[in-house]
Amino acid sequence: MQNFDYMTPTRLVFGENAIRKLPEAMAALGRRVLLTYGGGSIKKIGLYDRVRELLKDFEITELPGIQPNPKYDPSVLDGVRLCKEKGIEVILSVGGGSVLDCSKAIAAGACYDGDPWDLISYKVKAKAALPIVDIITLAATGSEYDSGGVISRTETNDKIGYIDPLLYPVCSFLDPRYTFSVSKKQTAAGCADAMNHIMEQYFCEDSTLLNDGFCEAGLKSLMVNARVCLENPEDYRARAEMMFACTLGCNGIYALGNSESGWPMHAIEHALSAYYDITHGEGLAIITPRWMRHILSERTLPRFVKYGVNVFGIDASLPAQEIAEKAIDATYAFFESIGIPMHLREVGIGEERIDEMAHHIAVNEGLENAYVPLSEQDIKSILVASL
Amino acid sequence: MQNFDYMTPTRLVFGENAIRKLPEAMAALGRRVLLTYGGGSIKKIGLYDRVRELLKDFEITELPGIQPNPKYDPSVLDGVRLCKEKGIEVILSVGGGSVLDCSKAIAAGACYDGDPWDLISYKVKAKAALPIVDIITLAATGSEYDSGGVISRTETNDKIGYIDPLLYPVCSFLDPRYTFSVSKKQTAAGCADAMNHIMEQYFCEDSTLLNDGFCEAGLKSLMVNARVCLENPEDYRARAEMMFACTLGCNGIYALGNSESGWPMHAIEHALSAYYDITHGEGLAIITPRWMRHILSERTLPRFVKYGVNVFGIDASLPAQEIAEKAIDATYAFFESIGIPMHLREVGIGEERIDEMAHHIAVNEGLENAYVPLSEQDIKSILVASL
Repeated sequence: MQNFDYMTPTRLVFGENAIRKLPEAMAALGRRVLLTYGGGSIKKIGLYDRVRELLKDFEITELPGIQPNPKYDPSVLDGVRLCKEKGIEVILSVGGGSVLDCSKAIAAGACYDGDPWDLISYKVKAKAALPIVDIITLAATGSEYDSGGVISRTETNDKIGYIDPLLYPVCSFLDPRYTFSVSKKQTAAGCADAMNHIMEQYFCEDSTLLNDGFCEAGLKSLMVNARVCLENPEDYRARAEMMFACTLGCNGIYALGNSESGWPMHAIEHALSAYYDITHGEGLAIITPRWMRHILSERTLPRFVKYGVNVFGIDASLPAQEIAEKAIDATYAFFESIGIPMHLREVGIGEERIDEMAHHIAVNEGLENAYVPLSEQDIKSILVASL
Repeated sequence: MQNFDYMTPTRLVFGENAIRKLPEAMAALGRRVLLTYGGGSIKKIGLYDRVRELLKDFEITELPGIQPNPKYDPSVLDGVRLCKEKGIEVILSVGGGSVLDCSKAIAAGACYDGDPWDLISYKVKAKAALPIVDIITLAATGSEYDSGGVISRTETNDKIGYIDPLLYPVCSFLDPRYTFSVSKKQTAAGCADAMNHIMEQYFCEDSTLLNDGFCEAGLKSLMVNARVCLENPEDYRARAEMMFACTLGCNGIYALGNSESGWPMHAIEHALSAYYDITHGEGLAIITPRWMRHILSERTLPRFVKYGVNVFGIDASLPAQEIAEKAIDATYAFFESIGIPMHLREVGIGEERIDEMAHHIAVNEGLENAYVPLSEQDIKSILVASL
């Protein structure tokens, strides 16, 4: 069991009508609010009006239009400028993980005099950040309960995971009803994203019985509940269970005490969505079984056997290699069954830039230190197998 | 799935030599420290000297001698008096859950002008509490990661669980090596305590697939690792896994989203240890299978079936009633196998005060609202079956 130093100070307010507590939570932080959101889905579901009504006594500046795979330019830069101009005291992020990730970068940038990219690229360590409150409307990234965000810089094809303990949201509001209208495509991608977060922690050199059980429970819960959500998008319990399993995805609790894996699938996928702006969860689902097959070896076999038996209920009396292969097949089959396109070509990625992406990943992501070290050639093989 | 409003702001520093970070954590809170501890086992294992050395630049007042089932008088009252006299800024609790529970009551009492019992008995809500840091030396109560403590008042046979969000430790240090010297008796009792914490959350009306998996993983991890700890008290990994599974026991994470059970076994055991000052974990282990058998019914049967199949690996194809009974037998057998005396008479409790205790519990513990409501007669039956 590995040492750890862990704290997640975020308050989670979960359940039907959770956001009735929003004014109280906001009032403790400030009156001048930057309200960040995305493409307007929060208006369709009535959440925007509800928030404006709840915060009618606050002074609100809006930053709408934050995109999936949120962009440094214009979103982060616009947000930082608005915070400085308006003397913003607290950021309220309403939407999915992309809006929140962007809000985190803004929160740090707003308290820094230089170019915010200095912070995101870890050239400079942030000394302060504005407090963040969020209302999450998509079960996926877990950004509502972690201190990181992923920011894309288009001109350099960079997609950087920016992590700093200053960036834990002060309070996250989770009302599963606000995910009822999430499309089948995004529901499935969110499930794949959250499953992958767990797999990145589960597939490692050293894990505990407790953490393995937590991860296996998370994976099983996500698979069962995502299916229900796809069949009946307004099933409160399934939306709620899926939302909460996602929320715990990146805050560490699934695997405190496990050794670091290096998050190889995320490292590879970040290049895909930086180069092609694809849906992150879909990219992960495509990469996952190919990465698994690539790293399956005598050394990793016991992990795949445990995964196959405990997550998919594969007969433990079968030969180990057979269990492992069945487990990888079952992973692929599950993602396919929830409607995810399982080939890169289906999401618009051909072989043209594979070499370039493999090189970019090998140079930037440190995968030589991953659970199973990956060279540029390994990365290329995984990408080619994913086409 | 139930609504919840959850936050655990405690920092956990876990692992070998974790306490090297103690001075840094303490310095942020103050220089005038109340050092609380128990009967001196921390001196035997060298921890006392290490702490004094690490804190040589701090001004330390000591409160030694805190007993198991910590007492309001003298421990809490002495601690509160010392805090006020010495202008204590931070409490450092070094020991097991009893020392920490007592320290929490002191932390609140030190910031209150009246009788601290007003706070513990919920007559008055605390407005502030001194910050608490702890070094935990026993895997059991989970007090290091929750906001509660249990305090006994001898003259009234009261044993009250005192809970307030002000009482989360700021920082908890967990080095599994400091549990190497824990006796077999206390190791087994700690395991039973932590298992019972999980059972109190697992046996409820409404639970989720995720939380059931978390709880089942916790129970299995505790059983496997407690056995290893008993065979080889210096097995670092087993001590570490057991310690962490215990740490999560009462902070809610095992069962966020589950409905409240009313913690009936704790309610009953608190009377036992208030009247007879027995080891809490042993009392719980004795009560557990008798409570289970008492509440087994058509309504609760599915829960016991799930428990039996997923925790003890009982054949799912057997008749449900048989699975449930085997599960209860397996629970009893496990506790017995780790050396816990499984009859009240073995820990010095006869039938003399059963009626009085049953009445006390029925009047004070609100078990008419438990998962399975318990009347005074029900409580008496469970106690008699436990003799």
